[in-house]
Parts: sequence; structure tokens; C-alpha cells
Amino acid sequence: MDSTTGFRHIPEATVSRLPLYLRSLLEFTEQRVATVSSERLASVAGVNAAKVRKDLSYLGSYGTRGVGYDVEYLVRRIQEQLGLDQDWRVAIAGLGNLGRALVNYRGFGERRFSVEALFDADAAKVGTEINGVVIQGTEDIERTVRERDLSIGIIATPAGSAQDVAERLVEGGVTGILNFAPAVLTVPDHVRVRKVDLSIELQILAFYVSGTVTEDV
Amino acid sequence: MDSTTGFRHIPEATVSRLPLYLRSLLEFTEQRVATVSSERLASVAGVNAAKVRKDLSYLGSYGTRGVGYDVEYLVRRIQEQLGLDQDWRVAIAGLGNLGRALVNYRGFGERRFSVEALFDADAAKVGTEINGVVIQGTEDIERTVRERDLSIGIIATPAGSAQDVAERLVEGGVTGILNFAPAVLTVPDHVRVRKVDLSIELQILAFYVSGTVTEDV
Repeated sequence: MDSTTGFRHIPEATVSRLPLYLRSLLEFTEQRVATVSSERLASVAGVNAAKVRKDLSYLGSYGTRGVGYDVEYLVRRIQEQLGLDQDWRVAIAGLGNLGRALVNYRGFGERRFSVEALFDADAAKVGTEINGVVIQGTEDIERTVRERDLSIGIIATPAGSAQDVAERLVEGGVTGILNFAPAVLTVPDHVRVRKVDLSIELQILAFYVSGTVTEDV
Repeated sequence: MDSTTGFRHIPEATVSRLPLYLRSLLEFTEQRVATVSSERLASVAGVNAAKVRKDLSYLGSYGTRGVGYDVEYLVRRIQEQLGLDQDWRVAIAGLGNLGRALVNYRGFGERRFSVEALFDADAAKVGTEINGVVIQGTEDIERTVRERDLSIGIIATPAGSAQDVAERLVEGGVTGILNFAPAVLTVPDHVRVRKVDLSIELQILAFYVSGTVTEDV
């Protein structure tokens, strides 16, 4: 979909910070802020300003001394790099509380991720609708993913079903999986998996809190 | 709670990787693996082996050449550093789908986070139970947080209620907030806030997928 030159030369650590910059930049556009300094972007991303300038230099964006970066231009460049200048068609498997929360997650739609198909193994849920999308049985995954040309699957099933669901998604043609299930997935090399562990954020928070908690006790 | 020397000298980037190492190490202990190489830890954390060795050296853990790191020792050291050698008492505000998913999130209990109080503004939910914990009204936050000595609050409310809930949590004595609401919170300096944006993981995934998607199309 994209043939930007140098596309693969951006370090992984930089890639992981681009969405953080993007989120802040989108807030600035809402507030009609036209330019932003590397210092301001640095504070939101939790890195120093020199690193921001280095990161953005990979995008060919250098800012103007004393003025800063053009917010709109930077938004466009990051969106291009992240592949967000196209729509991403997403399937969600597992419609428990987490899956339902994800269907309704407003952040997805804002970033051009559209939830196009829902799957659950529970016959009682199959045929019901969430946000206008009908829940299908997991046996329909391969066919539906192929027919609707879905490229990303989100797994929010129990651990025991995650591998089976992943294989069906891959069989249908998905090339990226976001895995919320507490399970390690085995997939072919051409498929990217990112595992989300919500307790990691809580652990990092605990580390910082543990240094200050004595103040009040 | 902790007076480990050098506690504050660990770089932020290292801190953010410790939970990743810990998760893998806990899996190794389940599989009764006694030692692990820096290369193996590196692959799970998505960094190179030299960085793993550097990170772990901050914990005073150097491994043994040709043998690797003692898994159990390393687990203990990381848990100490992350403050996970104590129990963390957590409140969750907002019991929509996401809040309910978090109450049931098994990863929290495994990491010694226990959900001790639930709050929601919806009178229809107040008085009902989830996992044996009764949902209280948001007006009870200050008193309950103080009485039960809760140190961490998780906000899973709509954006419009997040600031009010945050202030009540802080008033009660919480010193760490994990914020899932799409809102920027203003809190006193002694309170740590971590914002979780689930679409960030999806954006990072999209970046990697966008480089391979042409294979199948």
C-alpha cells in the first residue's frame, strides 16, 4: 500500500513513539495550535527534546528554529508513516466485556480503524448486533475475513480459544493480530502479533507510586 | 514502603521494560526453567541482548557467563523494584464494559493487585456486585478510599466524568491513577497518572502490517 522511501529504516523505538506524538498533535489541531516545539512534544511523550528532534528527522521533518514544527504537516507525515492515511478494516473475536469495550472504543474510529466483523463461539451471542455489526460464529472467520478483505484481527477471547481463532484469522488473510488473550500465539512469519497485557501499565505505575507512597502513610 | 538503595536511579526506559522481562520470567518459572540467557529475554522484550544486560545490571543482577540468569532470583529482584513484593489495593471507577473487563482481568490478581472497591455514577448499578465487590456511588469515593487505604485508582469512566473522579480519588489518598478515559487529567504533583490509549497498540501494529500487506494483495 505504501512505497515511501526509507520506510523500513525507522528504528523500532521511534515507531513506538510516533503514535504518542500523533495523539498530542491531533489535540493541538483541535485547539487550532499551528506550531509546536520539540520540548512540548517531548513532555507528552516522556522523552527529552533531543530525542524528539531525532525521531522526527527520520520523517524528514526538521522544524524551524524559534518557531517549532508545523502541526498539520507533522500529523500528515506521521499518519503516512503509520499507514493511517488508509482505512484499516478490523475483525474482533471474543465479545465478552473486553471485546464489547473494544467495539465501542471511540479511539479506533478516530484513527481510521473500522470494526467490520465480530465473532464469538457462544451460540447465544451469534446473530445479535453491536453497533450495527452482527456477531457471527467463529467457524465463519476464514470466509468472512477473506470476503471483506480484513487485514487486522483483535483477539479478546479466553486464553484457551486464542490459538484456534488466530489460525482462522490468518487463514482468512489477516496479517496483523492484536492479542488481548493471556496466551502465546504461534503464527506464520508474515503475520505480526502484538500482545497487550493491561497489567503492565499497572506495574509500571506501581513502581513510581512505591517511591512516593510513604509521603501519606 | 521500600528503601532499596539506588531505587530512583533506574532509567525510565529500563523501568518500562522490567514488567516485560517479569512476565516472561514468570512463564519460565511455570515451565520450571531455572536459568535464562539475555538473548532469550531480549527476544521477548523486543530489544537487543546488550540492552537486557545493561537493564538488569541496574538491579545488581549480572548473570553467569555461559549459564545465564537465575530465573527465580531475577523474578524476586524485579518484583522488589516494581514494588510487587507487597499487595496493591486498587479502586476502579466506571463499570461499563471496560471497567467490568478490568475487574475480571486475571492478570491483575496474579501480580498482587487486588480490586477492593468499585464506583459508578449510575444509580442502577450502585448496590450490585461484581466478583463479590459491591458497587458504590461516586460520592463515596473519598471516604472509601481513605478507610480502605487504597493507593491506586483505575478510571474507566466516560471522558466527561474523569476529572471529577480523579479529584475524589486523590482527595481519598490515592497516589497513582491509571486512566483509560479519553481525557487529560489535572492532579497534584505527588500523584502519578498513566494514560492508556488502546488505539496506540493498533497504530503500531498497523505500521508493521502496512509494510507486508502487499504480499497477499
